[in-house]
Amino acid sequence: MRRKEFEVSDLEQCELFLKELHDGVLTFSGVDGWPKAVPLNYVYHNGKVYFHGSKQGEKMAGLANDPRAEFVVYQAHAFIPSYFSDPYLACPATVFFRSVRIRGHVAQVESPEEKASALAALMSSMQPEGGHAPIDAADTRYTASLRGVAVLRLDSVEMTGKFKFGQNMPDTRRQKVLHGLSERMLPDDANTIEHIRSSALKQPPEKS
Amino acid sequence: MRRKEFEVSDLEQCELFLKELHDGVLTFSGVDGWPKAVPLNYVYHNGKVYFHGSKQGEKMAGLANDPRAEFVVYQAHAFIPSYFSDPYLACPATVFFRSVRIRGHVAQVESPEEKASALAALMSSMQPEGGHAPIDAADTRYTASLRGVAVLRLDSVEMTGKFKFGQNMPDTRRQKVLHGLSERMLPDDANTIEHIRSSALKQPPEKS
Repeated sequence: MRRKEFEVSDLEQCELFLKELHDGVLTFSGVDGWPKAVPLNYVYHNGKVYFHGSKQGEKMAGLANDPRAEFVVYQAHAFIPSYFSDPYLACPATVFFRSVRIRGHVAQVESPEEKASALAALMSSMQPEGGHAPIDAADTRYTASLRGVAVLRLDSVEMTGKFKFGQNMPDTRRQKVLHGLSERMLPDDANTIEHIRSSALKQPPEKS
Repeated sequence: MRRKEFEVSDLEQCELFLKELHDGVLTFSGVDGWPKAVPLNYVYHNGKVYFHGSKQGEKMAGLANDPRAEFVVYQAHAFIPSYFSDPYLACPATVFFRSVRIRGHVAQVESPEEKASALAALMSSMQPEGGHAPIDAADTRYTASLRGVAVLRLDSVEMTGKFKFGQNMPDTRRQKVLHGLSERMLPDDANTIEHIRSSALKQPPEKS
């Protein structure tokens, strides 16, 4: 069940998350009618998700047949062991995470300028230190590559974020989890603690 | 295009990868006919992928309607910047990764014993240090939880691995990439160097 209490209605938070990450899974229907799940690098650029790849293959064939797709980006932040809040049962074990799902239609980008702009944005996201000639449709050294590569744009119909940081927990349990994380201190735990605190502030007060 | 040179035909390598990781994306057709992509924790147990979750919601409804699914697990190991092998063009930038895709039918597990066994395996994978009572269908303290949770099993039809570590590179370029990684030494770079070396050994010799 998609738990409403974890849903993020704030578009800006979803966009910040999409700008932070570099890969996700594109889902579409294959020409054989089976669902397909393809991990891909992407860039969120001008409010759209762009991918690149070969002009041939199952992805291009499936999407040419049915352009409906869903793209999901997921980041696990912290495994919360059961014993943080329960000395006996395994049930409280969970994972705190952020994810964004975008449902939309995938279009093949034909314009060399839009292709160049999307690939330049991808490079700038993956290789921010530079170290290559700017990708420019007017640069003849890139002409053949731009012609040969497929660039896909996901035109969003719906974007949904799910950021799970214990918003549904009673405060007594949340305090135990915060204590457990502050003692464990794995690399992402300080960040997770911040997320738990800011998510709890956004929740309506508990009924007494 | 699914590049054949990256495909892993060795089932054991795929299984080791599935045992190492904890989350992936399950893809299926929604009741509205749209493709759906749901990130999930999983465990690879007795040669099957198991998930758990709520008994209600879009996942259960979609899969009850059409049990065909694809599950993908992906791990990015190293971004390879273009300048490792080319002083000018952006084109050689790439990501080395491992991924496994499993196509199959999703079945809902009804037997309390199989449910308990799958959830115990999931706990053992996520929380190997223990710290909870064993999940056992005969333990009455778990009866209600076992009854309330949905456990899903993916019965595989096809499993495909794709491990990309520059197998298609000319050796001169591979040497530049190895050199770049050995100077950069991000946390996963030493591991990536090992993968590049062992993948190169498995390739047929280059044509002269």
